[in-house]
Amino acid sequence: MCTPKACVHSGYKMIIVMKQNAKKESIKNIIRIIEDKGLSAHISDGKEVTIIGVVGDKTKLHDQNLEIAPEVERIVPVTESYKLANKKFHPEPSIVKVGNVSIGGGNLVIMSGPCAVESREQLFDTAHAIKKSGAQILRGGAYKPRTSPYAFQGLEEEGLKYMKEAREETGLAVVCEVTSLAAIESAVKYVDMLQIGARNMQNFYLLKEAGKTGLPVLLKRGLSATIDEWLNAAEYIIAEGNPNVVLCERGIRTFETATRNTLDISAVPVIKSKSHLPIIVDPSHATGVREYVNPLARCAVAAGADGLMIETHPNPAIALSDGPQSLTFPQFEELCQELRPFAELMGRKF
Amino acid sequence: MCTPKACVHSGYKMIIVMKQNAKKESIKNIIRIIEDKGLSAHISDGKEVTIIGVVGDKTKLHDQNLEIAPEVERIVPVTESYKLANKKFHPEPSIVKVGNVSIGGGNLVIMSGPCAVESREQLFDTAHAIKKSGAQILRGGAYKPRTSPYAFQGLEEEGLKYMKEAREETGLAVVCEVTSLAAIESAVKYVDMLQIGARNMQNFYLLKEAGKTGLPVLLKRGLSATIDEWLNAAEYIIAEGNPNVVLCERGIRTFETATRNTLDISAVPVIKSKSHLPIIVDPSHATGVREYVNPLARCAVAAGADGLMIETHPNPAIALSDGPQSLTFPQFEELCQELRPFAELMGRKF
Amino acid sequence: MCTPKACVHSGYKMIIVMKQNAKKESIKNIIRIIEDKGLSAHISDGKEVTIIGVVGDKTKLHDQNLEIAPEVERIVPVTESYKLANKKFHPEPSIVKVGNVSIGGGNLVIMSGPCAVESREQLFDTAHAIKKSGAQILRGGAYKPRTSPYAFQGLEEEGLKYMKEAREETGLAVVCEVTSLAAIESAVKYVDMLQIGARNMQNFYLLKEAGKTGLPVLLKRGLSATIDEWLNAAEYIIAEGNPNVVLCERGIRTFETATRNTLDISAVPVIKSKSHLPIIVDPSHATGVREYVNPLARCAVAAGADGLMIETHPNPAIALSDGPQSLTFPQFEELCQELRPFAELMGRKF
Amino acid sequence: MCTPKACVHSGYKMIIVMKQNAKKESIKNIIRIIEDKGLSAHISDGKEVTIIGVVGDKTKLHDQNLEIAPEVERIVPVTESYKLANKKFHPEPSIVKVGNVSIGGGNLVIMSGPCAVESREQLFDTAHAIKKSGAQILRGGAYKPRTSPYAFQGLEEEGLKYMKEAREETGLAVVCEVTSLAAIESAVKYVDMLQIGARNMQNFYLLKEAGKTGLPVLLKRGLSATIDEWLNAAEYIIAEGNPNVVLCERGIRTFETATRNTLDISAVPVIKSKSHLPIIVDPSHATGVREYVNPLARCAVAAGADGLMIETHPNPAIALSDGPQSLTFPQFEELCQELRPFAELMGRKF
Repeated sequence: MCTPKACVHSGYKMIIVMKQNAKKESIKNIIRIIEDKGLSAHISDGKEVTIIGVVGDKTKLHDQNLEIAPEVERIVPVTESYKLANKKFHPEPSIVKVGNVSIGGGNLVIMSGPCAVESREQLFDTAHAIKKSGAQILRGGAYKPRTSPYAFQGLEEEGLKYMKEAREETGLAVVCEVTSLAAIESAVKYVDMLQIGARNMQNFYLLKEAGKTGLPVLLKRGLSATIDEWLNAAEYIIAEGNPNVVLCERGIRTFETATRNTLDISAVPVIKSKSHLPIIVDPSHATGVREYVNPLARCAVAAGADGLMIETHPNPAIALSDGPQSLTFPQFEELCQELRPFAELMGRKF
Repeated sequence: MCTPKACVHSGYKMIIVMKQNAKKESIKNIIRIIEDKGLSAHISDGKEVTIIGVVGDKTKLHDQNLEIAPEVERIVPVTESYKLANKKFHPEPSIVKVGNVSIGGGNLVIMSGPCAVESREQLFDTAHAIKKSGAQILRGGAYKPRTSPYAFQGLEEEGLKYMKEAREETGLAVVCEVTSLAAIESAVKYVDMLQIGARNMQNFYLLKEAGKTGLPVLLKRGLSATIDEWLNAAEYIIAEGNPNVVLCERGIRTFETATRNTLDISAVPVIKSKSHLPIIVDPSHATGVREYVNPLARCAVAAGADGLMIETHPNPAIALSDGPQSLTFPQFEELCQELRPFAELMGRKF
Repeated sequence: MCTPKACVHSGYKMIIVMKQNAKKESIKNIIRIIEDKGLSAHISDGKEVTIIGVVGDKTKLHDQNLEIAPEVERIVPVTESYKLANKKFHPEPSIVKVGNVSIGGGNLVIMSGPCAVESREQLFDTAHAIKKSGAQILRGGAYKPRTSPYAFQGLEEEGLKYMKEAREETGLAVVCEVTSLAAIESAVKYVDMLQIGARNMQNFYLLKEAGKTGLPVLLKRGLSATIDEWLNAAEYIIAEGNPNVVLCERGIRTFETATRNTLDISAVPVIKSKSHLPIIVDPSHATGVREYVNPLARCAVAAGADGLMIETHPNPAIALSDGPQSLTFPQFEELCQELRPFAELMGRKF
Repeated sequence: MCTPKACVHSGYKMIIVMKQNAKKESIKNIIRIIEDKGLSAHISDGKEVTIIGVVGDKTKLHDQNLEIAPEVERIVPVTESYKLANKKFHPEPSIVKVGNVSIGGGNLVIMSGPCAVESREQLFDTAHAIKKSGAQILRGGAYKPRTSPYAFQGLEEEGLKYMKEAREETGLAVVCEVTSLAAIESAVKYVDMLQIGARNMQNFYLLKEAGKTGLPVLLKRGLSATIDEWLNAAEYIIAEGNPNVVLCERGIRTFETATRNTLDISAVPVIKSKSHLPIIVDPSHATGVREYVNPLARCAVAAGADGLMIETHPNPAIALSDGPQSLTFPQFEELCQELRPFAELMGRKF
C-alpha cells in the first residue's frame, strides 16, 4: 500500500491510438503535450498505425482534451480514474469503525430501522427490537428525499435527537441520511455515521462536505451510477482526508418493473475486486417488496457483503414512508435467525 | 390447480377508467363491447369518474383495442396475461424431468459443460470431470448464435452426436441450444432437453416448435425481457401441450459495464412468487468474468434457485467461445465443494 | 387554470383493487381510512373482485400505505402526483422570462457558450461570437460537477463575475449551473437564470433553495429520471412560489455506447402533452460527439422544442472540459444558419 | 470501396495491453500466437507496461481468447467487427431498390400500412389511401410476433396474397415481416422486401436465410441491441451475398414508461457515420402513442433518415393489433403534408 499522496502521483497510464497513416507532426505534437506535463510517452510505430503509451500521472492530462487533438483516433484509459478507493494501491480490505462497530473484516454488520423517524416511541421500540435480534447499527431517516414535494419529508433535527437518545439508551451506533450542508451540520452533533443517498451520489458538494466531517460515510449507489462512478464518488470523500467510506448497493434502474429497482448483486464481488472499501447491501429499497427481502438478504451474505441494511417498522401498515418493504419485528428476528448460518459459512459473525 | 383448458377460461379481470365526465353513451359503448364478448362489466359511477371492472376471460378482448375507444382514459390489467405458467392456477411448484434428473423440488441441479462443443475429446473430458464433481446435466453448444458472422458458429449435428455419446458413456442427461426448426429436428434425436437462448426468447415460432417436441425446454431470459414477457414466452411452449419448461436467468442488459450483463438475482424470488416453473441461474454468461462466477453461484443457491448452469472447459485459454468465463475442472470441483453447505442450508441436495 | 392553492386540493384519484374474495371488513377498513381523510370512496362490488375508486385530494393519503393494508391487491394511481407543473390545471403553455428573453411562445431560444468558464477572454470571445450568430442566452459553468475529484472544478465566483461582465458588454442574458446553497447565494448576484444539473435533479434541498430565489430555473433531466420524476422535481421549485421553470432534455442513460447518453427526443412531445412548462434540448451533452450536434439540433427544433443549449468554445482542442462536443464559432454560425428554416417551419423565430 | 473478399482480409487492428511487469515469456507467447495466425505484432516496450499492436485480419484471432492468456491486462479492439456494412470500406451511401422504389439517395421513402393484415378490404383501402398521400411502400403484417400466445397472430399466407394483390392494383412495393424459414419461403412468392422484426434481430439463422433470398431486407433494431450489434446483424445478411439491407430504428428499451420504447434518434447520424446502409425510422412502434407520431416523424426527417415507417388503419379503434398508435387516413394525409417542407429542407423528395 502506498500513502495517499504517493498514490495520486504513481504511474497512471493510458494509450493513444493515432489515426491510420497519421502525419509525423501530429504524433510529435502529442508527444510534446505529454512530455510538457512531465509524463513520458512510448511510441509503437506500426506500418499503418501508431500507438502511444503514456506513463506517469494521468491526472495532469485531464484538461488536455487529447481525444480531439489532430489525427487522434481514440484514447484508451488503462487505469481507473480513482486512486484512494482503488485496491491496487491499498490491497488490504479496509475496516471502518462506526461508534464501536467495525464494518469489514469478520463481522456481518446489520443496520436496521425505519425508513423515516416518525416519533420517539416508534424509534425506541425499533431500536430495542433490532438490537435484541442482532443488529448493531440503527438507521432512521430525519431528512427524507421524496419524489413528490407533497409527501412526508422527515422530522429533521427532532428526528436526529431521537436517534441520539436511542443510541444512548441501547448502545447501538446510529446512521442518518444527510441531504444538505445544513443537515450535515446538525447530524454531526447526533449521529455516528452520515449516509449519502442514491439521489445525491453525484452531489459532489455534499460529498466533500461529508468528507470534511471525518465521520464515517455510508455512500449509496446512484440509481443509474456505474461502479466506476460510484468509486469516484467515494474518492471525493476520501480525497478530503476521510477514508471511512462504506458503500451500499441498493439497486439500479432498469426496464424491469416487478421490483422497484434491480439489485445488482454482482456489485459485491466487483467492488471486492476493485476496491478495499467495505460494501453492504440494502434489499429493502432494492426491491420495494417485503417478501423478496429475505431471499435477497441471504444472497448479499452469500455474495460476500460486509453487512446489510434492512428496513423495519413496529407497524408497517401505518409507516409514513416505504411501508410495503418494511419488516415487522418478528419478521426481522426470523430474518436474522435465517441469516446466521449463511454468515457462518462465509466466516462472518453478528 | 385447474386443468389447462379451464385455466384459460377462468376469471381474468381488467379495469377500465373512463375520462373525467365521460358521456353516458361512451360508457354504454364499452359495456356493450364487453358483454358482446361474453364477459361482464361492473360499473362504479363516481361523481367525476366512471370505472368499469371486467370479469371474465380477458383474452377475448385482446383484439378490441379498448384503450382507444372514445373517452377511455386508461386500461389497467389486474391479472397477468399468462395462465399456464401462472402460480395462481397451479400453486404447487412443478418438477421437470430431464432424462432421469428432476429439476425442482429438493434437488439442486447443476448443468455444466463448454459454451461450444469443439471436439469429442473436449466434451468427454468435460463430461467425466463435471460428473465426478456432482453435475447432473451436461451442456454444450452445437449451434452457436454469435454476434459476428465471422466467429465460430458450432459443429452442428456432429456436436449433437458427441453429446449423445457423452450421455451414453457417463449417464449424464444432456441439453443443447437450438436456433432453428432444422436444429430442433436434429436435436430431438440426440438430447434430453432443448435450450432456447436469450436472443431467441421471443422467437415465437421457435418456442412453438420446441413446445411441440414434448421435450423439456430450458428457456433463457432475453437480454432485455421483462419477467412478464419471459413467462409469456414460457406460455407459448406450454400452450403447445408441453408443460416441461425450466427458466434460466442469465443477466439483463443495463448501463453497467463491469460485468457483461447484470444478473437480476431478484428474478429468482419473483418467479417463485408468480410461477410454478423451476428456475436456474447462469452466472457464467451473466458476468462473463471467471472470478465472479463463484460468488454469484452461491447467491443463486441462497436466493432459492433450483439449479445452476456453469461453463467449464478443459483449457479455457484455448476455448473457441467464451473462454474468459469458463472454469477449469479443478475450479469447478472447488465451486461444487463450496456450494454444498449452501445447498444444504436451503434444503437441497446435489 | 386554477390557482396553486386550489390545484393542490382539487380532485385527485386512485383506484384500489381488493384481493379476490376479500372480506367485507377489509373493504370497510379501507373505506374508513379514505373517509377519515376527507375523501370519498366509490365501491364496485363485483362477484369476485371489489374495486374502490377514490375521489378527493390524493396527497392526504400519501402517508397511509394503503398498498399493504389487509387484502389490498394493488393501488392504481389515475392522476399524476405533480400539480403545479401539470397541463391539466394550466392548459396554456407558460412563457418564462430570462432577462429580456422569453422562453416559450414563438421564440426559438438558443443558449450557448463553453462547458466551463476558463477565462475572461474565452468567455467574452464566445459571447460576442454567439450573439452575432443569433444566440440569446450565454451559458458557462463556474461550478463544474465532475466525475473525478481530480478534474477541473470551475472558477467559481470569479467565473460568475465574468458572466455578469459578459452580459453587460453584450446584452445577452446569462445562465450558470449551481451545485450548492453557497453557489446559489453567489449566483443570484450575477446571473439571470440558475441551472440545476442532471446529477442534482433530485437534490430536493437544492431545488427548494433555487425555488426560493424567484429566479428562472433551467432544470436538466436526471441521467435516469423518468419524465414523471422530472416534473415532480419541477414541482418542488414551483411549490416554493417560483413558476419560472424551463426543462432541458440532455439524454438518458442506456446500454448504448455510441453516444455518451441517449437523447430522448420523445420527451419533447411528451412534456408538451403533460405540462405547460417550456422545454429545450441539449444535443451537445446528450451525444458528446461534435458531428452529431447538428442533426440532433435540427431534430429538437422539428420535435417542437422551445430552444437549444449548444456548447461552443473558441478552441475546443484546448477546452478544460467537454471539448470533444463543443462547436467552434464558424461551426456554430453554420448551425444557426442551418436551423433557421426549420425554426420557420415550426413557426418560431430566433 | 473494396470488394467484399478483400474487405474481410484488409488490416484490422487491436491492441493488447500486458499486465504491469509482465514476464518476457508471456509477451513472446502472445506474439507467437499472433504471428502463427499470419498477423503481425508491434511491441511498445515501456518501462512498466508493454503494449502490443496487432496488424492484419483480426477475425483470424476470434477463437484465440487472447484476453485470458497469461499476463494479458486487456484487449482493446480498434476496429469494428463488421466489414461489409462498414462505411470505411464502402464510403458511398448505398441505394437499395425495392420493386421500383429507391431507398437512399435523394428520396424520402414512406412505408405505411396496418400493423396486421386483417382482410383484403382493409388492406386495399389502406393501400389506395396511403398511395394517394405519397407513400411508396405498403407494409402489412401477415405473421405477427405477439408477446402473448392468446393474441391475434396474423393471417399468414392469406395475408401475403392480399399484399401481392394490393401491389398489383396500386403499383406500391410491398414489405412483410417474416419470422421463420417457412414464412420466408412463402413471402418470396408475394412481396418485394422482407422485414426482420426487432425480436428476431439476433435470430442469426433467420438473417442468413433472408440473406440467401437476395430480396431486400428491412432490418429492425432489437429492443436492447447496440448499434454495433445491429450492424453485425446486417453483416450476417450481406455476408450471404445480399447487400440490399435497410436499417429501421424503432426504439430501444429503457426505464422510461411515458412511451412504449425510447426512440434513439441519434442512431440516424451514428449509422450515417459508421455505415453506408440506408436507415429509416418507425415512430409508430417507438412511441405506441398516436399523438407523438407526427413530431417524431418530423425529427426523423430532420435527423437525415432515408425514410419512415408509419402505421395506418382505416379504423384504428377496431384494429386487431397496435391500434393506439395507428393513424387514420386523414391523419396520414396531414402528416405527409406536414413532412414535405422538412423533406425539402433536407434535399429529399417524396
